[in-house]
Amino acid sequence: MQRPMTDKHANADHPIHDLTARRWSPYVFSDRPVEPADLRSILESARWAASSYNEQPWRWIVATTADPAEHARLLSCLVEPNQGWARHAPVLGLCVAALRFARNGAENPAAHHDLGLAAGNLSHEATARGLYVHWMIGILPERARELYAIPDGFQPLTAFALGHLGDIEGAAEQHRARDLAPRTRKPLAELVFGGRWGTAAW
Amino acid sequence: MQRPMTDKHANADHPIHDLTARRWSPYVFSDRPVEPADLRSILESARWAASSYNEQPWRWIVATTADPAEHARLLSCLVEPNQGWARHAPVLGLCVAALRFARNGAENPAAHHDLGLAAGNLSHEATARGLYVHWMIGILPERARELYAIPDGFQPLTAFALGHLGDIEGAAEQHRARDLAPRTRKPLAELVFGGRWGTAAW
Repeated sequence: MQRPMTDKHANADHPIHDLTARRWSPYVFSDRPVEPADLRSILESARWAASSYNEQPWRWIVATTADPAEHARLLSCLVEPNQGWARHAPVLGLCVAALRFARNGAENPAAHHDLGLAAGNLSHEATARGLYVHWMIGILPERARELYAIPDGFQPLTAFALGHLGDIEGAAEQHRARDLAPRTRKPLAELVFGGRWGTAAW
Repeated sequence: MQRPMTDKHANADHPIHDLTARRWSPYVFSDRPVEPADLRSILESARWAASSYNEQPWRWIVATTADPAEHARLLSCLVEPNQGWARHAPVLGLCVAALRFARNGAENPAAHHDLGLAAGNLSHEATARGLYVHWMIGILPERARELYAIPDGFQPLTAFALGHLGDIEGAAEQHRARDLAPRTRKPLAELVFGGRWGTAAW
């Protein structure tokens, strides 16, 4: 049984774009593969994010269930609780930040931020294609570094699971409950300030 | 004279969503104000980004030319070269990362990344509304902290200029040239790896 999607729609206080309102991070993925053309477009979209000095401090290592051994290898770079649900996602990715500017070796203070900007594009493109992304900070960076020979100066920071929504009926209760819970956010008045910290802009 | 937009359209190797293809970072802004309703929706959209443990480690301080003194105050938190062009943008924002989890005080390793994810939503919503965003890492964080009484545990990391495109004919040559130059990116084969670092996934 497919689940109703209405509970996951952003309960926005001001009108926002449909792709932003519909995006959320599922725990229960279907094993239905992602079309290779979709996957390429999703990463292509990330490629076109803005970055400080156009450094493009993002690299991705991807694996799909089309190659089960590679998929299992990438899965092994996630912390155990993430492995439990992410194993069902047909596409897994490791997101790696380039910590220094290629042109002069100086530290890039925007490296993590810009990796996140690219992740925003990636999520947006996936949503536009009927797919879902779940970002994870819970990875095993040193295992990833060793397995994939990630060089110094590059930091494995996050991972993503990508795919179609799965059937929550057969899912573990904790994942089912999370996938059914409404999305919640702090009020905008606690996030956007004018003039002084803590003073709501509106 | 308005400029042609074609050169700024992403020269994508795989199809991507129109809002991603059209987004770019102008130096030359019009002084035409941004509608308050648009600004609220743009920040609302950022509010709905994903974040690690739903921490929402993002805060924004915004100023518009509707209050010139506040606009000038926020402008003064940018490094000099950014002040030169950003002063014309009708909306300026400071983006602040919450470095620790509110629930336990532990360091949030995703703080910068998630601020970037929210920035992705913000850019997307602005683009959908015919507006443009230019992100800056070039800020004066200690000045921002002092001016706005930003508490410990929060890091002013980036700023943005937001508005409509301006007339490049009257702009400084360096800004005019940058706004006319095509957008360039590394090839996808240098960014997306499979199996091993440096081995193109496709």
